Amino acid sequence: MTWKNPKLVSFSLKRQAFISGQSSPRDLLEECAENIAAFEPSVQAFVSIDLDAARRAADASTARYRAGQQLSLMDGCPVGVKDIIATCDFPTQMGSPAYKGYQTPHDAACVYALRSAGAIIVGKTVTTEFAIGASRQTTNPFDVTRTPGGSSSGSAAAVGAGMLPVALATQTQASTLRPASYCGAYAFKPTYGAFRLEGVHIMSPTSDHVGVMGATINDVWEAASRIALSAGGSGYPFMQRAGEPVLPTKPVNLIRLFTRGWSEMDSLSQQTFDEMVSQLSQKGVCILDRYTHKAIENLEDILESCLDRALEIVVYEMQWPFQDYIERYGDKIGPRIHRMVEQARSMSRADYADLLSMRRDLQRRLSIVAQELGANGFLLPASSGPAPVGLEYTGSRTFPSFANLVGFPALTLPKLSSGGLPFGVQLFHLEGRDADLCSHAQWIDEQLND
Amino acid sequence: MTWKNPKLVSFSLKRQAFISGQSSPRDLLEECAENIAAFEPSVQAFVSIDLDAARRAADASTARYRAGQQLSLMDGCPVGVKDIIATCDFPTQMGSPAYKGYQTPHDAACVYALRSAGAIIVGKTVTTEFAIGASRQTTNPFDVTRTPGGSSSGSAAAVGAGMLPVALATQTQASTLRPASYCGAYAFKPTYGAFRLEGVHIMSPTSDHVGVMGATINDVWEAASRIALSAGGSGYPFMQRAGEPVLPTKPVNLIRLFTRGWSEMDSLSQQTFDEMVSQLSQKGVCILDRYTHKAIENLEDILESCLDRALEIVVYEMQWPFQDYIERYGDKIGPRIHRMVEQARSMSRADYADLLSMRRDLQRRLSIVAQELGANGFLLPASSGPAPVGLEYTGSRTFPSFANLVGFPALTLPKLSSGGLPFGVQLFHLEGRDADLCSHAQWIDEQLND
Repeated sequence: MTWKNPKLVSFSLKRQAFISGQSSPRDLLEECAENIAAFEPSVQAFVSIDLDAARRAADASTARYRAGQQLSLMDGCPVGVKDIIATCDFPTQMGSPAYKGYQTPHDAACVYALRSAGAIIVGKTVTTEFAIGASRQTTNPFDVTRTPGGSSSGSAAAVGAGMLPVALATQTQASTLRPASYCGAYAFKPTYGAFRLEGVHIMSPTSDHVGVMGATINDVWEAASRIALSAGGSGYPFMQRAGEPVLPTKPVNLIRLFTRGWSEMDSLSQQTFDEMVSQLSQKGVCILDRYTHKAIENLEDILESCLDRALEIVVYEMQWPFQDYIERYGDKIGPRIHRMVEQARSMSRADYADLLSMRRDLQRRLSIVAQELGANGFLLPASSGPAPVGLEYTGSRTFPSFANLVGFPALTLPKLSSGGLPFGVQLFHLEGRDADLCSHAQWIDEQLND
Repeated sequence: MTWKNPKLVSFSLKRQAFISGQSSPRDLLEECAENIAAFEPSVQAFVSIDLDAARRAADASTARYRAGQQLSLMDGCPVGVKDIIATCDFPTQMGSPAYKGYQTPHDAACVYALRSAGAIIVGKTVTTEFAIGASRQTTNPFDVTRTPGGSSSGSAAAVGAGMLPVALATQTQASTLRPASYCGAYAFKPTYGAFRLEGVHIMSPTSDHVGVMGATINDVWEAASRIALSAGGSGYPFMQRAGEPVLPTKPVNLIRLFTRGWSEMDSLSQQTFDEMVSQLSQKGVCILDRYTHKAIENLEDILESCLDRALEIVVYEMQWPFQDYIERYGDKIGPRIHRMVEQARSMSRADYADLLSMRRDLQRRLSIVAQELGANGFLLPASSGPAPVGLEYTGSRTFPSFANLVGFPALTLPKLSSGGLPFGVQLFHLEGRDADLCSHAQWIDEQLND
């Protein structure tokens, strides 16, 4: 096969054709299979894949559509699952030799939610080591010399290359939005607590999220809704309007954030982002920023001071299980994880308490500023430009880590490119405003198509 | 062997003798082994046990004491682990045929915390089916025709019979305090979030706790401290003064709660509890109750209205994983679990949101009343009297479920008996007041010895 330009393959856009009988889940799976044949040899997004089993599942789904008995909006959707998320039919190997061949008897909560809704679990996607350590083999589908981003490398590359319409990812700091940005995929990370996390390898219980990557906002919203509905009982009341369509809604005011991430960007990418902001402005969205509002300048100062501390929370919390793994597996656990566990030893419980109160304070401040300014969310790049060259460094975590630290819902739209490479527009909103966020993103997505 | 009267075997009381060389962890283990030989044939507290491995671990610990190199306060402590908590050396069978022979490669966070501190994992203790369903074989060490309580049946019976000084338990409603009360053991359930729960089979993520049973307050406090220190990074700042000794501290004011639980008690048990309250009162503790304070009467009315709703939270949240298990395992999953999952289907996400806000409201009200009255906690029975006859019904959940619902720290002291059977004095306190709670319990424990 010859290399072709990566193109997203949507599930939700095909649903009507499945219902009408013009197309079928099996047809969609074969489209994915073609892209897998074209891209997978060089992109290497999968660690396990079973297309035969997927074809059987797609045929069963096709039969359900023929009979008008589809199980849910997700019936027939091919899905990839990051390899730190348990599946009953594939090993869950965590990107680590320590878990080679590890097989769980059950699906993780998020996988069960999709599978029981008729989704087709096609395979497991490459993760960096335990989603925090060494990078693995996956390359960027737009340029194989560049990182796909991490840690959800395979999920992003698979969706970005049109090998899958939807993939499950996780994010502890930047691991969903960043790789999606680099690979030209949509991605959505709901409010902290929207999903049960059982069956996901947990590193930082207060920072870990499950995110969804997909080919459109509807793809990610509908998959996320399904998870929230089936496996959402985790103490967060619920993902706002889960299961309902998100209609395009124009945001009145958006807070644009620069932050340290802006200085990490090359000038071409900055210019690209600026032009996108101007477009939104011309469409009548009021853009508020540090130059127009002192409160935003102050907020950015606080975000700057919190950035490194967000990582300290992860470092403190990851002592378990990684102290255990290091004792058990020694050098099978990579050097970065050794260093982080070592760093944690110098932290006290009082440090940890301070970090948690820093997070609560930031949640409060972001909420106050957004509410006082009547903002419909925050606008910023999803990554500091496109994917950097090389496979070991998975890119800066700056831009995605703000919303992650506070647990606010965030998404990225693959609407920008710089030097022929994609990068994403990030929107995030306050806790619980998941559906509003997706509605505004829907509107922005349409405007930026014009 | 002839039946003997169950007697608690403490670990912490022996530590000085280990250090001085007058005794050793191996000696203590042999004392446990004698009690196991005497009681286990009829009590059946264990689902797996490996005394040979335990003896090797005890000998290694003994050698560390001899060398003055013990690993922690917990070094050499024999520990039993409820069989819904993962261990790398024993299967974790959840009290269910669906998990027969299930073996995890790693220890749960709480088990790792103790094992890495030198504790000896002696075996797995019987749990009711997934800690919510059908009762299993364990009997009460004080009367084999009676329930040991559930769901941590084996842990309570093993500690109560002196087969172990410490055992890990879990509590979703009443499953630690109730069986400890029935079996004459101490038990402590810290503030929600004090421990990482990874490796525990989760049913209701907002209701599930790990608790510790033991032979003295120090036994449970020191084990809990160790877990909080090694595996505590779960978003809760930390268990107050973990690792420090809890010194006896006289409570000034205690709020005595009657509630529905009181009407469930037989009059002899009521009288026994009343006498205990009088004793404390004579020692100068000011007992506040619904008859002296209208605010407490109001609080009891609210507690009454919340009691059944606490169970609804569990029912809603347990849909995952039990819906999956029912599809997969059918009748291997017991009828009570089938009924609960069925009940959950009639609940909406709005119902769930209401339940969560009911919980927050109750947390707030309990805190306000306690603070306004200057109370050092709440005083109530740990169970509605001693263990009932029969093995299927594990007893009323009323008394333990209040503190569990709000995630407040709670403990039971085995200081009462009625008809020759033990039951416990419960104390609970506000969120984060774990060490204060144990200090007050220490004082009460001493006074009631007089």
